[in-house]
Amino acid sequence: MTQKVTPRSKDYFRWYTDVIQKAELADYAPVKGCMVIRPYGYALWENIQQGLDRRFKATGHVNAYFPLFIPESFIRKEAEHVEGFSPELAVVTHGGGKKLEEPLIVRPTSETIINAMYAKWVRSWRDLPILINQWCNVVRWEMRTRLFLRTTEFLWQEGHTAHATPEEAEEEALRMLDVYADFAENDAAIPVFKGRKSDAERFAGAVRSYTIEAMMGDKRALQAGTSHNLGDNFARAFGTQYLDRNNELRYVHQTSWGVSTRMVGAIIMVHGDDQGLILPPKLAPYQVVIVPIWHDEEEKARVLATVETITGQFGEAVRYKVDDREEYSPGWKFNEWEMRGVPLRLEIGPRDVAEGQVVLARRDIGGREGKSSASMEGLVGIVQEMLDKIQANLFARALKFREDNTREPTDYEEFKAAVENGFARSYWCGSAECEATIKEETRATIRCIPFDQDGKKGKCIYCGREATEKAIFARAY
Amino acid sequence: MTQKVTPRSKDYFRWYTDVIQKAELADYAPVKGCMVIRPYGYALWENIQQGLDRRFKATGHVNAYFPLFIPESFIRKEAEHVEGFSPELAVVTHGGGKKLEEPLIVRPTSETIINAMYAKWVRSWRDLPILINQWCNVVRWEMRTRLFLRTTEFLWQEGHTAHATPEEAEEEALRMLDVYADFAENDAAIPVFKGRKSDAERFAGAVRSYTIEAMMGDKRALQAGTSHNLGDNFARAFGTQYLDRNNELRYVHQTSWGVSTRMVGAIIMVHGDDQGLILPPKLAPYQVVIVPIWHDEEEKARVLATVETITGQFGEAVRYKVDDREEYSPGWKFNEWEMRGVPLRLEIGPRDVAEGQVVLARRDIGGREGKSSASMEGLVGIVQEMLDKIQANLFARALKFREDNTREPTDYEEFKAAVENGFARSYWCGSAECEATIKEETRATIRCIPFDQDGKKGKCIYCGREATEKAIFARAY
Repeated sequence: MTQKVTPRSKDYFRWYTDVIQKAELADYAPVKGCMVIRPYGYALWENIQQGLDRRFKATGHVNAYFPLFIPESFIRKEAEHVEGFSPELAVVTHGGGKKLEEPLIVRPTSETIINAMYAKWVRSWRDLPILINQWCNVVRWEMRTRLFLRTTEFLWQEGHTAHATPEEAEEEALRMLDVYADFAENDAAIPVFKGRKSDAERFAGAVRSYTIEAMMGDKRALQAGTSHNLGDNFARAFGTQYLDRNNELRYVHQTSWGVSTRMVGAIIMVHGDDQGLILPPKLAPYQVVIVPIWHDEEEKARVLATVETITGQFGEAVRYKVDDREEYSPGWKFNEWEMRGVPLRLEIGPRDVAEGQVVLARRDIGGREGKSSASMEGLVGIVQEMLDKIQANLFARALKFREDNTREPTDYEEFKAAVENGFARSYWCGSAECEATIKEETRATIRCIPFDQDGKKGKCIYCGREATEKAIFARAY
Repeated sequence: MTQKVTPRSKDYFRWYTDVIQKAELADYAPVKGCMVIRPYGYALWENIQQGLDRRFKATGHVNAYFPLFIPESFIRKEAEHVEGFSPELAVVTHGGGKKLEEPLIVRPTSETIINAMYAKWVRSWRDLPILINQWCNVVRWEMRTRLFLRTTEFLWQEGHTAHATPEEAEEEALRMLDVYADFAENDAAIPVFKGRKSDAERFAGAVRSYTIEAMMGDKRALQAGTSHNLGDNFARAFGTQYLDRNNELRYVHQTSWGVSTRMVGAIIMVHGDDQGLILPPKLAPYQVVIVPIWHDEEEKARVLATVETITGQFGEAVRYKVDDREEYSPGWKFNEWEMRGVPLRLEIGPRDVAEGQVVLARRDIGGREGKSSASMEGLVGIVQEMLDKIQANLFARALKFREDNTREPTDYEEFKAAVENGFARSYWCGSAECEATIKEETRATIRCIPFDQDGKKGKCIYCGREATEKAIFARAY
């Protein structure tokens, strides 16, 4: 198998799928629109899960598990919700050899089934808030699918909370958006715009949707996580009520929020290059690959003994892999682990052993510039420091790339040029008509109305009417 | 809500479901045969997952994810497999508003979909072994369901490995049975019989099935984990072949092995008593609950300050919960946490603060006998030691219970009495007829032919013919 991927400049989409297949992150399943997450891709997903789960628990959330199947009638209870999800549903009609009385929907998201339970569990203000998260698979029947970005079945987490007041629900929705942004920026090294969705882009059933939006390597946008204030929409549909301290019956106010295996796609597209994947050290299954080099058995023994000293030093402090396979050359291994995006490579040959040093090669900086040597003594500290530098560099690089490609056009012509090749940050009057026309004419959508506004007024980039907020426009995945 | 459960002696099944509901482990879902795993039950499952996953990784396995949906034609490829699973399948016939060309099965187990991928991935001996595990949900349409023990949808892990030789597959199947037994005995404190299944009880598609079998509190058996040597049955059905070192094409030899949320049911039934759940410290979401006791604000401040010192000592070394709710009395809290099976309770009142001590109450030993006091100094060490003692006591108690209720009957009349009320360990000639007749007449099945045999010969407990092995017979869940 060739170790090359299609260059990004030639065909970005082929580059993306080449990287996924050659790095063995995932494969196409024999079921239309579904994928198989291979061990290396799943190890990355496990690290994403841990990074998020730790943050959820630190903010008081607990995990639970609700059924895969939802009675069709439940989906119909919230009017906007059913309209939004109807075209995407997979339906179980037979079970145990018999036709079911009521068809079951394979969950596309779990607001309805969870509300059916909350309506049963919540009695009084003492039962609130409920702060539950679920890790699971969901199914949305998609016409055009892409590995990790849009698949019929995908893995995600969905938080579902219930609160006594609208204020608490709003606070929670914003808190979880912050958690997502913190994870994206600090763990995945992906800079994000935090903001709210326009009504047209709102989640089906939400009062307000918030999002983190990232710029991919082809300058298109990807929604990397969303957090919704559901108000009492689902509570009214399912009768989720509680007795407040004055013994009055009130509806709960709710949120839901989710991050999915899409995040893997974002990591590939934000950091990868024409040599393959580049993984941020905090999430990489292997942070360091050690490639021992020898020419004969005597050298092999000496080199591997030194490798053992090093891995002894690493212990649990560094996630490493020793590639001592005999059937491949060092050069072949270098390419393989570059393709797989391991942040740091350690090379050790007989001369290094003699000199008490190793060669370090950074994945984020190629060629001579990314190479250095380090003394074996105190190597674990040097490696950890370098991993921190790589993590910081990946973030800085992605941020610069986004800034270089985010423009503030002064008129609609400039706007059209900007969204051809990046993000546009422009005043928007708030009308759905302007939004729809822009989308029709440029294929750019409002990714979010970012929280970060300068408070000034301006003119809508399309209609010229007064506008109080700027929005981020871009073509999106 | 009353804090009492139905006594075990009165109605064991009601006791079981009472405990699950009152300890808030799980609840019935609005979908027939499905359950909701509530946060406390899910936290227990997360600890089970970690205990197993750590062992899988230590034995060289990696995790991956395969699709939920399996084309109907795949299920039909292995003759025994389709016969075994056909009556239990849930079928998706519609997706995205259209009837599907080929119906999709919601996975009841993943041998077939995984073999479709292995057939694609495996080319040469260099690609072997494949040692993959998957954590996921599966669906089997069940007529009679019980929370955790038998539900239409359940969570589990399923390992699927592929090897070059039959010997390696056999070794792997046995290795994973050992992993399961180690987990069951050391983490869940459940003694198990390790052995092989009779042909009648073999997994549909396996050459040999191995199992760990445990005795529940009502003296019935529960299969707590299984490991199968699949031989080349699925490899032949899917064409999973590799080129060996001599460049000859050979079928791979495979295993599969699984443990499910049933394990939660086993923990409840092995350790629980008429006060509710009793959790083994190694798996308990909270190992210690701290109940501060005060009468006025001044006492409250002093007591809570001391609690903070203690939790500071505990740090990450002990999983604890401080129950400082104002709306419940200490007595109410004691009952609540006993119901929830927390292994150790710490009580701290103003007098304890003055004396620099706390009261410890063990969940496994009730009344005065289980109570002691300990100095605040070095408390973390004392607590950890006591948790170890509780863990050991739960195992010893369960083992004694099993031994007291496992008999070696000398004739069929004694055998019938034995399986009315426990396990019978008896010679079996190996014929399916004897096995079937015994099942029909006594409702006892062969749980396993245990590895642990004395090498002597004897007479089949049913037909009197010569027999070389004893089997464990019992009524089972």
